[in-house]
Amino acid sequence: MPSLALANRQWIYSARPDGRVGSEHYTLQESSFSPDLAVNEVAIQAHYISVDPYMRIQQAQRHSFDAPHPLGIVQRGGAVGQVIASRSELFQVGDWVLSYSGWQLYAKCHAGELRKLDAAQAPVTTALGVLGMPGRTAWFGLMDAGKPKPGETVLVSGAAGAVGSLVVQFAKKAGCKVFGLAGGATKCDFLVTKLGLDGAIDYRAFTNANTLSDEIAARTGGVDIYFDNVGGMITDAVIPNIKLRARIIICGQISQYDGGLDKPDLGPRFLQHMLFQRATIQGVLARDYTARMDEMLAIVGPWVSTGEIVFEETVVEGFERLPEALNSLFEGKNLGKMLVKV
Amino acid sequence: MPSLALANRQWIYSARPDGRVGSEHYTLQESSFSPDLAVNEVAIQAHYISVDPYMRIQQAQRHSFDAPHPLGIVQRGGAVGQVIASRSELFQVGDWVLSYSGWQLYAKCHAGELRKLDAAQAPVTTALGVLGMPGRTAWFGLMDAGKPKPGETVLVSGAAGAVGSLVVQFAKKAGCKVFGLAGGATKCDFLVTKLGLDGAIDYRAFTNANTLSDEIAARTGGVDIYFDNVGGMITDAVIPNIKLRARIIICGQISQYDGGLDKPDLGPRFLQHMLFQRATIQGVLARDYTARMDEMLAIVGPWVSTGEIVFEETVVEGFERLPEALNSLFEGKNLGKMLVKV
Repeated sequence: MPSLALANRQWIYSARPDGRVGSEHYTLQESSFSPDLAVNEVAIQAHYISVDPYMRIQQAQRHSFDAPHPLGIVQRGGAVGQVIASRSELFQVGDWVLSYSGWQLYAKCHAGELRKLDAAQAPVTTALGVLGMPGRTAWFGLMDAGKPKPGETVLVSGAAGAVGSLVVQFAKKAGCKVFGLAGGATKCDFLVTKLGLDGAIDYRAFTNANTLSDEIAARTGGVDIYFDNVGGMITDAVIPNIKLRARIIICGQISQYDGGLDKPDLGPRFLQHMLFQRATIQGVLARDYTARMDEMLAIVGPWVSTGEIVFEETVVEGFERLPEALNSLFEGKNLGKMLVKV
Repeated sequence: MPSLALANRQWIYSARPDGRVGSEHYTLQESSFSPDLAVNEVAIQAHYISVDPYMRIQQAQRHSFDAPHPLGIVQRGGAVGQVIASRSELFQVGDWVLSYSGWQLYAKCHAGELRKLDAAQAPVTTALGVLGMPGRTAWFGLMDAGKPKPGETVLVSGAAGAVGSLVVQFAKKAGCKVFGLAGGATKCDFLVTKLGLDGAIDYRAFTNANTLSDEIAARTGGVDIYFDNVGGMITDAVIPNIKLRARIIICGQISQYDGGLDKPDLGPRFLQHMLFQRATIQGVLARDYTARMDEMLAIVGPWVSTGEIVFEETVVEGFERLPEALNSLFEGKNLGKMLVKV
């Protein structure tokens, strides 16, 4: 194979944020990429790179579900791209693949790290969304941890986000009455009009947990399953509204990612409600369900093909905008899954 | 049956506490008790009356697991006494029974509300402790909700209390490494010397959650099961020490019972730890396991007979001291189950 030198671009995670993450915590590095491959290696060119809230968790100083993301290396993350050279029999040049190659245009990966995508079956970007990590989290978080029963009331925070917008649809399919919490009228309109929810509550219209809590009570009549992506004041407002044997699923706490993981802020104590309602709280993480990915794809894949599931994407154009795109997640600027087209 | 008029004494719950409950929230009422019985009714004379932390939950203004305890009626609660008259074939004069007749010397009960006790098999007071509601809560809270595995590390708050002192012993029998949190050197010494725990931590020696948390980390090396009777600062200190797939059982939140149920105080947000460790929190309540009482008695009953389980009691003498005894629970003055002998 001829050795071609390609102009690579990489975003290096270079400074640990105290609060909101942004461009100042990254350095753009240009280098030469030579696809000289070892056996079983594959060279890929990224076309879509993912930005996800979990990235900010790994940037905190404290060990979370991982050791803190090291400084001075390429920002880790998922990407969808095409094979440009291969020393694996499993992959041919031109194949679409899902990789975990991070924020860079070109990367060498071991064949075992890649998942081949069938562009004819579903848009390749779905591998970063509904048919990828967010979809898996939504599916197993709701179905496995939440165990929804027909007629139950489900409330989802961050309901217009990558995971939330799937959870609400899965909950409707499970026969539940479904409400979403989201920021702003546009998202709330999307939830009701496009996703068919029974109601949406714009949390930004409420300045404190008590008035938001009253609104949740009035609108939902009590909550059997609360799927939480946000935490903070929103969760403070939901918890007094849980019903007997409610299940609370902690999938994310994005409101706390601007420094609250290292220096937790204060909120009202609430564990008495767990006692009163004999409720449960369970933290879920995508990786715990990796081994069951096929189970999700077998059910959700056909729904994607038939259009029964809406998978909204917010696509930002330009490799140079990756840090800005990540930052914007914490401003709630995405509808559905946010991707950067590079 | 001749109608005998007996001098009854009743503690009427007469004022809702804002903070700590005490004598000022009760009125002592004397009246005449006439054991004229309807069919299937039984008249009992109480000998031991229970004081339990849950009573304070029911006194809060807010609906908890029950509507608030009404004012102007006898304080509800468990009692052990003897039958003094019976119109039920199931009970004879002299029988020992467990009732839920509250804070009064004499009461009429429907036969269906009573449990007959065998004084030859175990001390009758155990029906209010290890072989009663606290025992059931401890057993099912730990075994059913906590699912302890040999070698796991269990930490119990309020470890010298009525429920806690049983949980720690059940956890030892389950093959766990067991640590207790309690207030003061006497209780800690009891936990290690008499109950055989692997360690005890006197939380009163710590003025804030951070230093207590460090001590818990150093002593336990991380916690698989946290059985919480206390909440507040103690729980704040435990949570950062939970291990992967930890189970947190909320059995009580006694630190919050001085008004915190009506007006929650603030504590550090912690739900991110549920996510990091994919941990669960579950609230448990004795009544959920009432139907499985026999299952517990079949296992724990023999341990009581053989002396394999220590069941400590703190017995206060005198009917007139019931409110004072209840109050003293919140000062942590009891070792094991607190009872009032009347």
